[in-house]
Amino acid sequence: MINIRILTLPNLSNLSFFPHFIFQVIRCRAAVLWKPDAPFSIEEVEVAPPKAKEVRIKIVATGLCGSEMKMLNNCQRFPIILGHEAAGIVESVGEGVSTVKKGDKVITLFLPQCGECTSCLNIGGNVCIKVKESYDGLMSDGTTRFTCKGKSIYHFANTSTFSEYTVMREISVAKVDAGAPLEKVCLISCGFSTGYGAAINTAKVTAGSTCVVFGLGGVGLSVIMGCKAAGAARIIGVDINKDKFEKAKEVGATECINPQDFKKPIQEILFEMTNAGADFCFEVIGNPETVVAALASCHESHGVCVIVGWISASVQLSISGLLLFSGRSLKGSIFGGWKSRDDVPKLVSDYMAKKLNLNPLITHTLNFDKISEAVELMKTGKCIRCILTF
Amino acid sequence: MINIRILTLPNLSNLSFFPHFIFQVIRCRAAVLWKPDAPFSIEEVEVAPPKAKEVRIKIVATGLCGSEMKMLNNCQRFPIILGHEAAGIVESVGEGVSTVKKGDKVITLFLPQCGECTSCLNIGGNVCIKVKESYDGLMSDGTTRFTCKGKSIYHFANTSTFSEYTVMREISVAKVDAGAPLEKVCLISCGFSTGYGAAINTAKVTAGSTCVVFGLGGVGLSVIMGCKAAGAARIIGVDINKDKFEKAKEVGATECINPQDFKKPIQEILFEMTNAGADFCFEVIGNPETVVAALASCHESHGVCVIVGWISASVQLSISGLLLFSGRSLKGSIFGGWKSRDDVPKLVSDYMAKKLNLNPLITHTLNFDKISEAVELMKTGKCIRCILTF
Repeated sequence: MINIRILTLPNLSNLSFFPHFIFQVIRCRAAVLWKPDAPFSIEEVEVAPPKAKEVRIKIVATGLCGSEMKMLNNCQRFPIILGHEAAGIVESVGEGVSTVKKGDKVITLFLPQCGECTSCLNIGGNVCIKVKESYDGLMSDGTTRFTCKGKSIYHFANTSTFSEYTVMREISVAKVDAGAPLEKVCLISCGFSTGYGAAINTAKVTAGSTCVVFGLGGVGLSVIMGCKAAGAARIIGVDINKDKFEKAKEVGATECINPQDFKKPIQEILFEMTNAGADFCFEVIGNPETVVAALASCHESHGVCVIVGWISASVQLSISGLLLFSGRSLKGSIFGGWKSRDDVPKLVSDYMAKKLNLNPLITHTLNFDKISEAVELMKTGKCIRCILTF
Repeated sequence: MINIRILTLPNLSNLSFFPHFIFQVIRCRAAVLWKPDAPFSIEEVEVAPPKAKEVRIKIVATGLCGSEMKMLNNCQRFPIILGHEAAGIVESVGEGVSTVKKGDKVITLFLPQCGECTSCLNIGGNVCIKVKESYDGLMSDGTTRFTCKGKSIYHFANTSTFSEYTVMREISVAKVDAGAPLEKVCLISCGFSTGYGAAINTAKVTAGSTCVVFGLGGVGLSVIMGCKAAGAARIIGVDINKDKFEKAKEVGATECINPQDFKKPIQEILFEMTNAGADFCFEVIGNPETVVAALASCHESHGVCVIVGWISASVQLSISGLLLFSGRSLKGSIFGGWKSRDDVPKLVSDYMAKKLNLNPLITHTLNFDKISEAVELMKTGKCIRCILTF
């Protein structure tokens, strides 16, 4: 166990005309990735105070998301602190921060909401242009707030929640209900909202419809929950791991199938099962072949296929023009189409009002130090969501 | 000029217990395609009486659509009578026909509406499953109603309007206002509705939005009209033939650009012009590279790209997953998303009420015998829509 130490900079912290600034470096635990294909290394890191428009957060709980698992093999810069699905408490705020204050419970947002860009101002979009400012792993001023063993450590997704303390931009933080259990609602930070919103917002699933969900991990299960909440009459889960079927049915799937049980392509099976194609299909894997199968499984005239899985920039989808010509739609969805700062507090309120149930998604809760154990649980498909707590 | 002759079958036509059946073969002019890459050949053909649930129509006016131009090189079976965009008058009806009668003005529908299939019963779809019954060039009983020089002639799209008389299924015929000028409203049979509806129904263009239309032929111009009617604030026309710009602006484009005038890819130009991408883009050419350019020209977060151009079954679209991941939508649109029998009469009524203007689309009207001249006008881009009249 590494102790947390607050290092006060003596010549600055007592300046009476800067009473709201905290000029303290915090030392705490973090999981650092030093190089490609290396395991997470629990280290003591230094977390600098928040600068203007930044917030320093004490992370209480962070999930290990499937996207993080992909990042383990796709990360472009090192050393880095990953993690983006989390909830915590504001420890201090930088100059000009007005929407959160010390002690507020918050959820971290890998997708910011600046409120001013062409996306934030459009009713239909949620990919705030400011998200790109986090692509280089640096804060807005071009530096990092993390150091370890004398080296600067890159941020990830402007969140870096695999650290007991992190620094984020104010536009990437959502204040939530003071009574919210952070070890549960941290799932609203990514996995749950991504799936649930893909059904509710992106696909706009209709009552009585038939839905198919390809991939029954945590996000896929959340898609099922969204389809059920929207009143779908039939929700078919598809996965090559039949151990996932029980949980899928628990959250709302009316039936589940394994493509490996059939000789014919899965789209032909689903075409027959659904009497000419599903109304809504969701690809929650991030595999280009599955995207095509999901699109082909939609009704040719009005079917809507939503890509929820993460597909890397280098991957090309090869789609027959005929699949779209007759009227199908293919839509991307990121963070379930939610406007992050506007909608996350509402989702937390819905959870508090028992309109949403996150419990089925949380199969494991481990101490943060056991992050490598959590990785193994994810790799072997033994857990849906593993929550790491500090 | 070939005379029209009605051949009465003497032993059948006077049967008093079948007074509503017309047992007559009609001889009339038609444009026959005898083999691949051959020109249209004006011939005298025999048109058999309509069978059960079929209607025989005297075609008054038929357009030469861009899709027909593509069919000239893509037709799979010969001999065939093409033509699908037309208006005419019911000459006779077969047994069991209840929705139209002799003398009714009608519009031919390449997309039927049976009212019973999964598509017709869904509020969002319009590709009636019965359209597939026309794929083999035969009527429902597996035979054709056309013969010429002793040979059976294939139907096309269950319409075959390049004939003075044609036989169609009742579900492929829409009765329209008795006062409608058929040489105008025939455009509602395909070109106008396809483009106008792509904007109104498929994209659901919003007031104040920015739209981009790739391809400024008759359908592209109709897309512009739809965008304008929906209240788009900015409509950018894109074509490599700048001679089309004047007409595009006449019908509603606020500006037009030629990709050949720029060194950078057109999507980069449009990204800059539109401040981060258009709200709606329309591909009205049927070129897979242009589809990708149109998708990339959409706003990454909420942009909607509609494929209106005809892309053959063998063509694969190669799309970077990243283009969709952030939230763009790619939609197919056929016949503008209209439910053919329900909506075509309403569109004709809107035309009669001067809510729609078809005149800018009709640049040439020729006698049917000059169909090859019309093909040349289309090939050289000298006409938008050429209407052939009998």
